[in-house]
Amino acid sequence: MVKDIRIGIIGLGTVGSGVLEILRNKQDKIAQEIGARLVVTVACDRDPAREAVAAAGGARSFTTDARAVVSHPDVDIVVELIGGLEPAFSFMREALENGKHVVTANKEVISQKGQELFDTAAKTKRDIFFEASVGGGIPILRPLKEVLVGNDFSVVAGIVNGTTNYILTAMQQEGLSFDEALAQAQEKGYAEPDPTADIEGDDAAAKIAILASIAFNSRVTKPMVYKEGISRLTSADMTYAAELGYGIKLIAYARQVDGEIITFVRPALVRKDHPLASVNGVYNAIFVEGDACGQLMFFGEGAGSLAAGSSVVGDLVQVARNILFGSTGSIGCTCFRDLRVRPIEEIEGRYYILLRAADRPGVLARTAGCFAEENVSIASVIQKESNGAEADIVFMTHWCPERNLRAALAKIAELDVVSSIVNILMVLED
Amino acid sequence: MVKDIRIGIIGLGTVGSGVLEILRNKQDKIAQEIGARLVVTVACDRDPAREAVAAAGGARSFTTDARAVVSHPDVDIVVELIGGLEPAFSFMREALENGKHVVTANKEVISQKGQELFDTAAKTKRDIFFEASVGGGIPILRPLKEVLVGNDFSVVAGIVNGTTNYILTAMQQEGLSFDEALAQAQEKGYAEPDPTADIEGDDAAAKIAILASIAFNSRVTKPMVYKEGISRLTSADMTYAAELGYGIKLIAYARQVDGEIITFVRPALVRKDHPLASVNGVYNAIFVEGDACGQLMFFGEGAGSLAAGSSVVGDLVQVARNILFGSTGSIGCTCFRDLRVRPIEEIEGRYYILLRAADRPGVLARTAGCFAEENVSIASVIQKESNGAEADIVFMTHWCPERNLRAALAKIAELDVVSSIVNILMVLED
Repeated sequence: MVKDIRIGIIGLGTVGSGVLEILRNKQDKIAQEIGARLVVTVACDRDPAREAVAAAGGARSFTTDARAVVSHPDVDIVVELIGGLEPAFSFMREALENGKHVVTANKEVISQKGQELFDTAAKTKRDIFFEASVGGGIPILRPLKEVLVGNDFSVVAGIVNGTTNYILTAMQQEGLSFDEALAQAQEKGYAEPDPTADIEGDDAAAKIAILASIAFNSRVTKPMVYKEGISRLTSADMTYAAELGYGIKLIAYARQVDGEIITFVRPALVRKDHPLASVNGVYNAIFVEGDACGQLMFFGEGAGSLAAGSSVVGDLVQVARNILFGSTGSIGCTCFRDLRVRPIEEIEGRYYILLRAADRPGVLARTAGCFAEENVSIASVIQKESNGAEADIVFMTHWCPERNLRAALAKIAELDVVSSIVNILMVLED
Repeated sequence: MVKDIRIGIIGLGTVGSGVLEILRNKQDKIAQEIGARLVVTVACDRDPAREAVAAAGGARSFTTDARAVVSHPDVDIVVELIGGLEPAFSFMREALENGKHVVTANKEVISQKGQELFDTAAKTKRDIFFEASVGGGIPILRPLKEVLVGNDFSVVAGIVNGTTNYILTAMQQEGLSFDEALAQAQEKGYAEPDPTADIEGDDAAAKIAILASIAFNSRVTKPMVYKEGISRLTSADMTYAAELGYGIKLIAYARQVDGEIITFVRPALVRKDHPLASVNGVYNAIFVEGDACGQLMFFGEGAGSLAAGSSVVGDLVQVARNILFGSTGSIGCTCFRDLRVRPIEEIEGRYYILLRAADRPGVLARTAGCFAEENVSIASVIQKESNGAEADIVFMTHWCPERNLRAALAKIAELDVVSSIVNILMVLED
């Protein structure tokens, strides 16, 4: 007789409906692979109209009360898909305390309160899996944690937010302004009506925190990740970067250096021949370098109902296997190190700076002087034909401490001939 | 007290020494992650001189007798790294029969006699893992089988042989002939003294058989894979392909169509903007498309001591976890379908044909006539300036059955004006 593994799903939005669809279509296939059926005994959404989604997806019952799911006697695994910190965190903690296993796509909770959940899961010997929280349909967390366990990683970095990558691709390929590209992304459903979390790098910060924690075996929480968004980027930046042989991507980055972690989310110049430069549109790609596996890149759809659903279902099958074999809790938290996260002022890099300045004698000398005073060495300068009153000046620095760069720019901002520091962008060196 | 998981390694060549190195360097890290130490109780090589490798790698004992390893009382997991069908297959079967778990990098055994090993493992409830058999350090088999279990795959394809990719890259980028590029690859250690298995597509055929079996849940063995090598490729092919906007790659390919499987290894024209076109040198990349996850690509080092070792160690840790939690045998064979593999004559595609023909009136008309008689529609023709007596003619066909193409080419080969059909290459359409 085929056993039933009983699932309760909280949240029937984009990902939740995708999970239901996959579970319904693949029930037989999964049963043949693991010898058990995954059955959704209860589906939950605070919107009562979604009872129809639950029914269409084959859920055996529907409720608007999430607390009924986390304590449901006929639920082995709770799938949390409502997103955000609360009440999602409380639901998951209660589910674990009630002896349920948890599968989630929630990057906020994992990147901010993951530790508490993992501790709870360890205490109750329950599984908690979260593959869908990073990279949508791309298998990345379990490969890092399991298949690549024999590695120490020096770097994990990539493009982990599809909305911003769509916008940057449209700016670069179609010459749109940021506002035009954002409007186009919203029209196509790739950006939310309130796009703040995506365009300000919030979403990517949560994801790189999770990736870094796994890669470096040391807890990196979202607030530790320095972040800059893409809303200040202009067509001029795209043009100048292209002239210099670069594209601009929102890069989520974490590196281990001398027993410390450097991590940030910021738009960065990426060489045209770098593998990440050709990752366009809503696609995501994650690059890692391990001391045994070498350089790896994982590329795919970073969002979407079925893509994220695919990762959730993969987790569900793993938990189901563990239930069937009595091996739940076998993969827990792996943050057994405690590495310092270096403040952004302490990092070093190469930088692109776009200034707008009065078009008159001495401007270049005075700005260059400010860089020199702070020991920031300039690798190249492009001064553009002026529009009459003002000129664009693009500086590319040599490798320098970000602290020095900031000091130089503070002085430059004070110069009466400089009307604005339009943008400062890091150059991705890996 | 930390438990020891005891490992016996057979074969201390490139991969074996990499595995020893990783296990020695990462023993503490792995112990912190899984609560057990991986200890090499015995290492084996038929070359007694490799006792030094074993000792340096921290193996507790050395033997030249592999049968002593597969029946060793202090071995929980046998790692088979000698390659080739026999005696590797017998060693693994005996190990499983003796109650050992097996980890291997052996693509030959898995792609030809995998079924027998999986049956034996199922009977004895033992694990057999083989991540390193495909893609070196790239996590691909376990992600396909575990994380992506909620998908049906339409296609799995890629560049899975680093030697041939190195040669093709050198031909394309440096304009070398095949022989020159092969010599360079041998000099750098990227090609064996006898490179046949790599350049004739043998190695790639074994790998795509394994990938297809997992992706389609249906056993594809190596002999079922149609294969062509790269030794007949010339600089002229590279040049003409480039003029048409393509590179040439050795593509390992498997697609599910109408409940049947199409699979082959052959050099193919790949559009310059296709993700696989920019995979150069010894790198590998594997592309899959699933009905939930969408398009994914996995990129990395396809060979090498530490890269393959990384995958072996990942498998060892999984088996160790399963031993610790009593869940061995939880992931077995997943070939519960039995799909027909379509003979190559039954497939369809677009093709590139390079002819060398007498440079006189009527040649184009007569060759084009042969294509027309077999209903092969020509999309474009390039006739090159002749060297006096002969001219190169490149045809690109529209989509057509390979059977018709072959019939047309048989007629063309008979034409007295055609001195040779230099090459026929498929165009990668995905």
